[in-house]
Amino acid sequence: MVRQAGFPTGRSRSTQAERALAFRKMHEGPGLLLLPNAWDVASAKLYELEGFRAVGTTSAGIASTLGFPDGERMGLDDNLGVCRRIVAHVAIPVSVDVEAGYSGCLDGLSETIARVIESGAVGVNLEDGAKAGCGGSAPGALLEPSAQADRIAAARQAADRAGVPLVINARTDVFLAHGAVSEDRLREAIDRGNTYRSAGADCVFVPDMGDLGEAGIAALARGIGAPLNLIAGERTPSVPRLEALGVARLSFGPRPMRAALHFLRAMAREWLATGTYSRLHSGESLSYDEVNAWFTPGDSRVT
Amino acid sequence: MVRQAGFPTGRSRSTQAERALAFRKMHEGPGLLLLPNAWDVASAKLYELEGFRAVGTTSAGIASTLGFPDGERMGLDDNLGVCRRIVAHVAIPVSVDVEAGYSGCLDGLSETIARVIESGAVGVNLEDGAKAGCGGSAPGALLEPSAQADRIAAARQAADRAGVPLVINARTDVFLAHGAVSEDRLREAIDRGNTYRSAGADCVFVPDMGDLGEAGIAALARGIGAPLNLIAGERTPSVPRLEALGVARLSFGPRPMRAALHFLRAMAREWLATGTYSRLHSGESLSYDEVNAWFTPGDSRVT
Repeated sequence: MVRQAGFPTGRSRSTQAERALAFRKMHEGPGLLLLPNAWDVASAKLYELEGFRAVGTTSAGIASTLGFPDGERMGLDDNLGVCRRIVAHVAIPVSVDVEAGYSGCLDGLSETIARVIESGAVGVNLEDGAKAGCGGSAPGALLEPSAQADRIAAARQAADRAGVPLVINARTDVFLAHGAVSEDRLREAIDRGNTYRSAGADCVFVPDMGDLGEAGIAALARGIGAPLNLIAGERTPSVPRLEALGVARLSFGPRPMRAALHFLRAMAREWLATGTYSRLHSGESLSYDEVNAWFTPGDSRVT
Repeated sequence: MVRQAGFPTGRSRSTQAERALAFRKMHEGPGLLLLPNAWDVASAKLYELEGFRAVGTTSAGIASTLGFPDGERMGLDDNLGVCRRIVAHVAIPVSVDVEAGYSGCLDGLSETIARVIESGAVGVNLEDGAKAGCGGSAPGALLEPSAQADRIAAARQAADRAGVPLVINARTDVFLAHGAVSEDRLREAIDRGNTYRSAGADCVFVPDMGDLGEAGIAALARGIGAPLNLIAGERTPSVPRLEALGVARLSFGPRPMRAALHFLRAMAREWLATGTYSRLHSGESLSYDEVNAWFTPGDSRVT
């Protein structure tokens, strides 16, 4: 186990277990749990200060800050190193994205989960599919439902051994892998969700890029006997609509990070094109002192 | 020396020396050298793809991604770790911000410079003042000019020993420390600049937050016998005006990073306030595939 010096992971396991239970309870309402995705300590701290109740990480976002493409090319040490830093600087629960679990075998997956817990996270995402074009697998490759159920059960057992009721968010890539939203695919997503729930998942995550539509979302929420997590895509209904449809949790993936990069690109293009800095200084930007104060001793959570 | 696995630092020293010379030459015109400041690999790669000829790092920006306030609270390992990753993923010259050099003695500063070069950087910023309120020093504490000259000479010798003509950007905090722009301060900045140049600096950096005005900028550029680096503050003239005034280089410090965070905050506030995501999806944001392609093998610079 690589331990990084210079920042604390010093909350006790019992506190971590309590935080995990509090995080799990956030999936029961009232209202949908907004889980924004961070890629470094600054973004996580910003979310906490804005009042979000919990924060997730984005593996794709973290990977790009370190120079890796998505798809488990970034090592688990790097991935969890960022998680550990975030946990040390926010008081809210942190859920970590470890993609498909960084191992094809159950023992390796159990080790990944043990390390997730050691990093201070109280939630984890686990995918059943390889991302299109990444990781050497063909687009559309999904694990058999029973094989993924075995993996979720192994993850649950690893968490139990660590004494932390880790919130396992089982992601099914049915729509990412196949694109089109058909009745068959909707059925498959519901069946997989229920299989994963029975195996020990707390929450089922169905990323769909906004193509499901309200009827599809309602069918998923009704059909899956677990809290449903969606991602905010371009055509995703508003939070009040999602709540009415029975969605329990909404995350954002790497999109906020890419949107911030896009804003950076617009600033940079202005510097190059006209030699002016209006976007850089427009609005009430964050001040040097304000950002420094996030991390300055006196904040009792930072040692 | 900590070496990080998983990404290359594999350019030879001779190549690094050539890159340093190319970077130095960029300070001679034609035109002003725009040196945008990166805080991670993604931001650096974006700048390179937009066509900037070189990139600097921002210590304050990097520190906040890792959960530290500015002012050498972040360790040199962490600081240079980010530099090393950036160097591994861009072909353009990288200049690194090591604040006041991470040591109060000349031997320690020389070791810092050796490690800067080992990280693959071909330029470095060195400050003569403690940032206001940071690092335990009182606001306004500046090193004596002769003491800072000794430090710059030591840095130059360390670079010579490594065989790399490191571009040393000597920063004087005359205006950061004292605020008001008086004739006396202008005289002090010019004198310090020339002293630092004589000691071995290639470039003189006078951050002023935009208060100098065109007459003050022209006086600095005329008075200092070295390329002049300014920072883009709220009242800083446009690039064409700066070129007319004789400025050689313009950097941005942590401001682009904070502006991107501010954009993130605006997005997040919309999610919380109205449950909509218009800022997240507005414009032509960067796509998942586009960002992944920055770091996918096939790009010959990534191993």
